[in-house]
Amino acid sequence: MFRFNNDYNRGAHPEILKALAQNNEESYPGYGADRWCERAQAEILKHLGGVKAQVHFIVGGTPTNATLIAAALRPWQSVISVDTGHINAHEAGSIELTGHKVLAVPAENGKLTARAVEEDCRRYLDGGAPEYLTQPKLAYISSPSEFGTVYAKAELEELSAACKKYGLYLFLDGARLGYWLASEGCDVTLADLARLTDAFYIGGTKCGALFGEALVLGNPALQDHFRTCMKQRGDVLAKGWLMGLQFYTLFQNGLYFDLARRADRQAMEIKAAFQKAGIPLWVDSPTNQQFAVVSRAQEAALGKDFIFELSHAVDAQHNCIRFCTSWSTRNEEVAALIAAIESLPGCEEAK
Amino acid sequence: MFRFNNDYNRGAHPEILKALAQNNEESYPGYGADRWCERAQAEILKHLGGVKAQVHFIVGGTPTNATLIAAALRPWQSVISVDTGHINAHEAGSIELTGHKVLAVPAENGKLTARAVEEDCRRYLDGGAPEYLTQPKLAYISSPSEFGTVYAKAELEELSAACKKYGLYLFLDGARLGYWLASEGCDVTLADLARLTDAFYIGGTKCGALFGEALVLGNPALQDHFRTCMKQRGDVLAKGWLMGLQFYTLFQNGLYFDLARRADRQAMEIKAAFQKAGIPLWVDSPTNQQFAVVSRAQEAALGKDFIFELSHAVDAQHNCIRFCTSWSTRNEEVAALIAAIESLPGCEEAK
Amino acid sequence: MFRFNNDYNRGAHPEILKALAQNNEESYPGYGADRWCERAQAEILKHLGGVKAQVHFIVGGTPTNATLIAAALRPWQSVISVDTGHINAHEAGSIELTGHKVLAVPAENGKLTARAVEEDCRRYLDGGAPEYLTQPKLAYISSPSEFGTVYAKAELEELSAACKKYGLYLFLDGARLGYWLASEGCDVTLADLARLTDAFYIGGTKCGALFGEALVLGNPALQDHFRTCMKQRGDVLAKGWLMGLQFYTLFQNGLYFDLARRADRQAMEIKAAFQKAGIPLWVDSPTNQQFAVVSRAQEAALGKDFIFELSHAVDAQHNCIRFCTSWSTRNEEVAALIAAIESLPGCEEAK
Amino acid sequence: MFRFNNDYNRGAHPEILKALAQNNEESYPGYGADRWCERAQAEILKHLGGVKAQVHFIVGGTPTNATLIAAALRPWQSVISVDTGHINAHEAGSIELTGHKVLAVPAENGKLTARAVEEDCRRYLDGGAPEYLTQPKLAYISSPSEFGTVYAKAELEELSAACKKYGLYLFLDGARLGYWLASEGCDVTLADLARLTDAFYIGGTKCGALFGEALVLGNPALQDHFRTCMKQRGDVLAKGWLMGLQFYTLFQNGLYFDLARRADRQAMEIKAAFQKAGIPLWVDSPTNQQFAVVSRAQEAALGKDFIFELSHAVDAQHNCIRFCTSWSTRNEEVAALIAAIESLPGCEEAK
Repeated sequence: MFRFNNDYNRGAHPEILKALAQNNEESYPGYGADRWCERAQAEILKHLGGVKAQVHFIVGGTPTNATLIAAALRPWQSVISVDTGHINAHEAGSIELTGHKVLAVPAENGKLTARAVEEDCRRYLDGGAPEYLTQPKLAYISSPSEFGTVYAKAELEELSAACKKYGLYLFLDGARLGYWLASEGCDVTLADLARLTDAFYIGGTKCGALFGEALVLGNPALQDHFRTCMKQRGDVLAKGWLMGLQFYTLFQNGLYFDLARRADRQAMEIKAAFQKAGIPLWVDSPTNQQFAVVSRAQEAALGKDFIFELSHAVDAQHNCIRFCTSWSTRNEEVAALIAAIESLPGCEEAK
Repeated sequence: MFRFNNDYNRGAHPEILKALAQNNEESYPGYGADRWCERAQAEILKHLGGVKAQVHFIVGGTPTNATLIAAALRPWQSVISVDTGHINAHEAGSIELTGHKVLAVPAENGKLTARAVEEDCRRYLDGGAPEYLTQPKLAYISSPSEFGTVYAKAELEELSAACKKYGLYLFLDGARLGYWLASEGCDVTLADLARLTDAFYIGGTKCGALFGEALVLGNPALQDHFRTCMKQRGDVLAKGWLMGLQFYTLFQNGLYFDLARRADRQAMEIKAAFQKAGIPLWVDSPTNQQFAVVSRAQEAALGKDFIFELSHAVDAQHNCIRFCTSWSTRNEEVAALIAAIESLPGCEEAK
Repeated sequence: MFRFNNDYNRGAHPEILKALAQNNEESYPGYGADRWCERAQAEILKHLGGVKAQVHFIVGGTPTNATLIAAALRPWQSVISVDTGHINAHEAGSIELTGHKVLAVPAENGKLTARAVEEDCRRYLDGGAPEYLTQPKLAYISSPSEFGTVYAKAELEELSAACKKYGLYLFLDGARLGYWLASEGCDVTLADLARLTDAFYIGGTKCGALFGEALVLGNPALQDHFRTCMKQRGDVLAKGWLMGLQFYTLFQNGLYFDLARRADRQAMEIKAAFQKAGIPLWVDSPTNQQFAVVSRAQEAALGKDFIFELSHAVDAQHNCIRFCTSWSTRNEEVAALIAAIESLPGCEEAK
Repeated sequence: MFRFNNDYNRGAHPEILKALAQNNEESYPGYGADRWCERAQAEILKHLGGVKAQVHFIVGGTPTNATLIAAALRPWQSVISVDTGHINAHEAGSIELTGHKVLAVPAENGKLTARAVEEDCRRYLDGGAPEYLTQPKLAYISSPSEFGTVYAKAELEELSAACKKYGLYLFLDGARLGYWLASEGCDVTLADLARLTDAFYIGGTKCGALFGEALVLGNPALQDHFRTCMKQRGDVLAKGWLMGLQFYTLFQNGLYFDLARRADRQAMEIKAAFQKAGIPLWVDSPTNQQFAVVSRAQEAALGKDFIFELSHAVDAQHNCIRFCTSWSTRNEEVAALIAAIESLPGCEEAK
């Protein structure tokens, strides 16, 4: 069986394991106050166009999202997210657990629009901010989104402007950030993100590291006592240097982007195979996640040799299924999948 | 400089790094639903004397403590802990953040006594549990404690009986569990812990692993939807197999205990050196943490070559300082420290 | 100006003020441990068909909802409510503040259907209750709903069965309960509510009292330490006897129902006036809230002498506006409103 | 039986009942947006020496404390209180429920000292505010304290200076404020409180009202969206005008202070009786609470005709018991108590 069900099914890139082995005998200060974290932070800062950000390392995406949001908000404030957003749909109520409402709005292609933000803000903040409504204070977006789609720079500019207009923070969940920045047609850089968001994170877990996300806090209002919030929420890893070392390895020579670029290219081959076979794609994703709408027979045929994820039922006869490539996907795995797609039942006529 | 300031300043035991390297290319299901977690759980269960426990892997001690306590308690319930307990003194209010009061009682030798539990329970639960008081529901202990001291089996039996009498859960923080179980004179086994506590955890981070704690939930009342609580609080690691593999490596042939035994032996040598030099020890610790009461001159002398931790000021002239050995402490480091102790100013007369 | 904007714009029924004056010089135990609370509880219990409920008095609806829900749920559990439900739309995120997600489903006529509950339960609880989803544990309904509509006994039976099937509590917000039970065609009694729900409350604030709601906890699972939860959340009034006395006054001779019946009758007259004038009603409400869809000109005309509430915009030319009667509405106020409706611009043709 | 067990065992001053009766038929806007609240706020503001405070009315002390503290703090911040403080000892963990730790320090005569605040601040905030400690941000005091003792203006000045030095808010719980301001020797005014604290409240429940506390927010940093916090926590009373009317009645002609002065005078008579009888007082309280240390025989003798509260056991033979006067205490009740004290067993020799 070949696993295309997610982008975190293998360990880490060999360079990372090598770095771990080389430094394993060293003795380091605890809790991220070490020289690897410092170096990794410096490498990341180089990309931020001069924004004096704090960079914090947290083991996974769910705690990164929850800690940032809990630290950013006052009790009466809430978060705008698309209904399919990870914090709203896949984290078991982690944001509500911190005491804050998620104002879910319909997604367009998996994405939040500036218009939706403005509409919600007008509803909640105009007219004197009626006391029986929470006050939206943070807009949460992911890029790539849960459906692999990405924001154009113009879309981000609009979102950023809408947030500024209403005093909201813009926070970008970058669990798969590499696959966005390395994708064809991406017109956004890390420096743009530092400029246009108040905080974002660079996902390591899904992009070559064993684990770890690098949270970039560009807005000084979000920096106050953030380490204490992390500690209080259990996010401070004793051997924090493990994450510093991994991010240093990924960033000091561009490995992070190389790995993502390769995975995106593989995804494009899979996408082309689906298109050639006449199998509809649910959205037009330029990144490492591809969503195909298949018949039950096709799903069964693919299920023989491949593990993938059911996204959702489309109709009584069709499901939308997800295939992920990643930094660890092998070319022969992709080739096998493409061959299987080509010989799917009901695809002959498409050729 | 030699680091004796903590027991997590180096990476992982070479066996663990080797296992990671060997399995890095494998593809695994996410979130701990893999065969290494299964095997590690099976190895741990072998030690539990037949208790049908759940075993969960969480990256660190602070989230393990907070998630267990948050999942165990109803809103009106509170936790009994000694004032020096880790959850009360070193985790930035993590328990209060979950909405629960910590009822801090004075420690005896760093430990909680059955008597203190009973007194608090009588105060809060007797007389019809007055509605203006929270209801203690969980007693939190650590062994080794923050001062390296440990519980005798008879003490645990008493604590367990006191907790049962008042309907409390007994939860043991085992961040340094190995150093207890491997210490000379220890009359407690993992099976005793499974029998006498409702939950406890086996610390990996400080005992040979890169990271990870194995939380053992023996009481079925604590098992309900515990995974959802973990997910909600950001504790479910994407590559959960990393912890399964580490605990399997530590437990499948007794490595965990061997490493701890060696570190305890080193600590006993350091302890003997302090005693021989006439330097008082703050408590009688049989484990890897030793607390010495030194003059300012002695502290400065030791500070030249060794990194240690200030525990607390004893009087205007003396501080209590902590030295930790660990699974990674080298014999030459110990020898250097002993030599330094022997030549401390003001210790000649002690010889 | 005549106020029809809500049902709490005047003090209390004269009988209540009289009772307060008569007992003002008495000396009572604090916190609701007095004989008036006892008597009021006994009066209410008489109506419950033998259910051994706890009855608690809380000053308002928002704290009653939040405390009940916070006390009922474990951290991983959530609440099903219609999107227009008071807890979801009008209480400033009070439920999320307690750490729980509100799963909002579309309302039908302002009401939650058994079908919607079952669908949500299947989604969250079937398939092994995936750990990344909260677990619905309580269904929240209001009757009358935010739109004045009410549940038929058969609908309640279905909801109750759906909740039982999936292990959910059914909780009924009865801020306007009297106006339901006294409405024409109501086939539900307090005994039915005690049998079919796990908890409900009898609204006093909007039905003749100065303030106060009587929360009825029929399910023993909800009774444990509920007083401590109330205390902890600030819900225990020092002079609790004030609420006991008010509910005793309202219930000991049926005053509660008489007041509501009169207000419902007034509302039916207003409803008939709208119908006669050809002005559409947004829903068919048999209770004290009536929602009319009026043109801007009509709204302006009514606004000259009457205070009412804007419910929502219907289209560019029409708004839906709400008129409430209450226990304190005077017949001359109703007559004036009816006269105004009859002479509304654009209604001549309807006659 | 005569009740001296608390200061809230009777309804309200007749002037208040009269005002309620006179305004009961009026129709008011909901939620405190009415003219009585406006007038009451204006009356209170007259006393504040020009401080532009917000004044909010909340039904009781526990929700006032919890809402103020929850609104004031960020997640990583904590509260300093004496261990006997109401929020620490009598509110069932209400502050911890909001996610914040209470740093309990020993009381001196029931009071918090500037020295204790400074010591705690140095411990938590000096040395770079170590991330494993919460950050104290608010000092909570009560005057009169739980033992009836009060702060001299100089003490308040010192506390205020200590708080300012470390960036803490100073919050004064004034559940019994009147009994302080009206006490002999009090050198503090409401204007001093507005100047020296960031927030305080004027207790109505224990000082003549049916219910209600007036929270005065002098520091603009505490005013942001406070109404939303109140709403979210269930503190906004539908008929908010009831509290406005009561506070207007108490403040428009000094009734509040007159009532308190009379009760303090009665307490001084009781105090003198204990002193004359040679019965020790636990503290030197100038206000309406008096604490006497009595033998078991004396306690039993007093218990025949009087209801009082056990404060705490002093030794095997003696208890400390509390007697409260209040705005509603009658002179004949005081006379009866004094007579009983004079004839207590074991007091003959004292004469």
